[in-house]
Amino acid sequence: MILSEILTIGNEILRGERTDTNASWLGNFLTENGSKVIRITTVGDEVDQISGEIERAIQSKIDLAIITGGLGPTQDDRTLKALARALDRPLKLDKEALEMVKESYSELSENDKHEHVELTPSRKKMAKIPGGAKPLHNPKGTAPGVYYEKGNTKILALPGIPKEMKSVIRKNIQILELEGNGHVENFRTFKVTGIGESSLSSALEEIRKKFPTAKISSYPLLGKETPEVKVRISDEEEKLKDIEILFRNLLEELNGAELNE
Amino acid sequence: MILSEILTIGNEILRGERTDTNASWLGNFLTENGSKVIRITTVGDEVDQISGEIERAIQSKIDLAIITGGLGPTQDDRTLKALARALDRPLKLDKEALEMVKESYSELSENDKHEHVELTPSRKKMAKIPGGAKPLHNPKGTAPGVYYEKGNTKILALPGIPKEMKSVIRKNIQILELEGNGHVENFRTFKVTGIGESSLSSALEEIRKKFPTAKISSYPLLGKETPEVKVRISDEEEKLKDIEILFRNLLEELNGAELNE
Repeated sequence: MILSEILTIGNEILRGERTDTNASWLGNFLTENGSKVIRITTVGDEVDQISGEIERAIQSKIDLAIITGGLGPTQDDRTLKALARALDRPLKLDKEALEMVKESYSELSENDKHEHVELTPSRKKMAKIPGGAKPLHNPKGTAPGVYYEKGNTKILALPGIPKEMKSVIRKNIQILELEGNGHVENFRTFKVTGIGESSLSSALEEIRKKFPTAKISSYPLLGKETPEVKVRISDEEEKLKDIEILFRNLLEELNGAELNE
Repeated sequence: MILSEILTIGNEILRGERTDTNASWLGNFLTENGSKVIRITTVGDEVDQISGEIERAIQSKIDLAIITGGLGPTQDDRTLKALARALDRPLKLDKEALEMVKESYSELSENDKHEHVELTPSRKKMAKIPGGAKPLHNPKGTAPGVYYEKGNTKILALPGIPKEMKSVIRKNIQILELEGNGHVENFRTFKVTGIGESSLSSALEEIRKKFPTAKISSYPLLGKETPEVKVRISDEEEKLKDIEILFRNLLEELNGAELNE
């Protein structure tokens, strides 16, 4: 069993301005691909904090540590610096990574949203990775992912923007040597209180009818004072938004039902 | 400045079955009340894992450690056992806590949803707290919160069900000696991509018109390739659900707008 940890970076998560949906997506991804997640940690944007957590993960001899966030071009993106410090490796401009960054920007230029995209120092910064690390192509953005093996611990740093994070890990699933194939489903989970599973079934039927490709599972949470049902719905990301709206509307029509996040 | 940590307990969070909204609510609550959150950690339901994290928090001389989850009556609710181990204090049936549990269940009985609610061993378990700890009344549920001071570190264990968690901390804000008054707003944040702030303003106006008590703030995220706007909407919890549905519908009418969690 591959033991893994998730480390998400960002002051905005600590302050509660953003809910950490990357961690739950990764938790699901790793679980579905045969790994056991034993810890999720969030720390702020400081180099000391980030490198401290990476060092702790390495010392705990975890098999896989996945870091998200802090790979971008701005000043407060400090994950690569922290990773270099934790690994005691110098930060170096990596040729392959620079090629990746260049390509992403020239694609952006071609899409004519930008007249001319220059490789500014802050953009070059995304190609400065710890010596010995491997850059990973980011199909949906400009900041490459970064991979490093330290003893038995695989370390993977991913961008914080959800669609980029997902695309980098999906494209590079094979180096993680997980048991699955990386095709994790997009899903939403809901906790419905106040009504039992049987009262809920008509609403779920309605969703099934309108969204035939959706996979819907539900189970009652036992030992609660009021009835509670957990519902998990998976489908394509685009459809999930509409499904969520429909589900919320259907629940409003059910007397006594309350949706708890 | 009071430095704080949040520790959430639960295998379902590690597996990504549930997104940790307690941590983001607490992060916001603590920040708005003058505390700086320096770390959020999630571990599973094992006593070793939980007590290990509590010990680490105490050793790091943090001012305030808030734990959520694992206080309930079921077998896999192990936070109090872990807390007792970390503090090296025995678990004792606390009279005051038992009174609280009894009262909650007799209120439930009166509400005639249950014919007769007995104090079973698993329910009594919620009143077994580490010696020297203080039980805290839970206005919305049956499991009391638990408070302990270890040196300069205040430790607060809260139930994992969001409305119970919020009610216990709000009712007991004064013992935490925070700077604020505990009246944190309920809110949702949204990240809208593909359209600029000006294109979004009509939709936000619409929400303001229909929900006059909602506080809406928005700001563009800079340095992105496609326009990105962050929107924060606060109002009463009940209204927020309707606001979210309205906002999603309005966004669908805006060409090119995409909602990213």
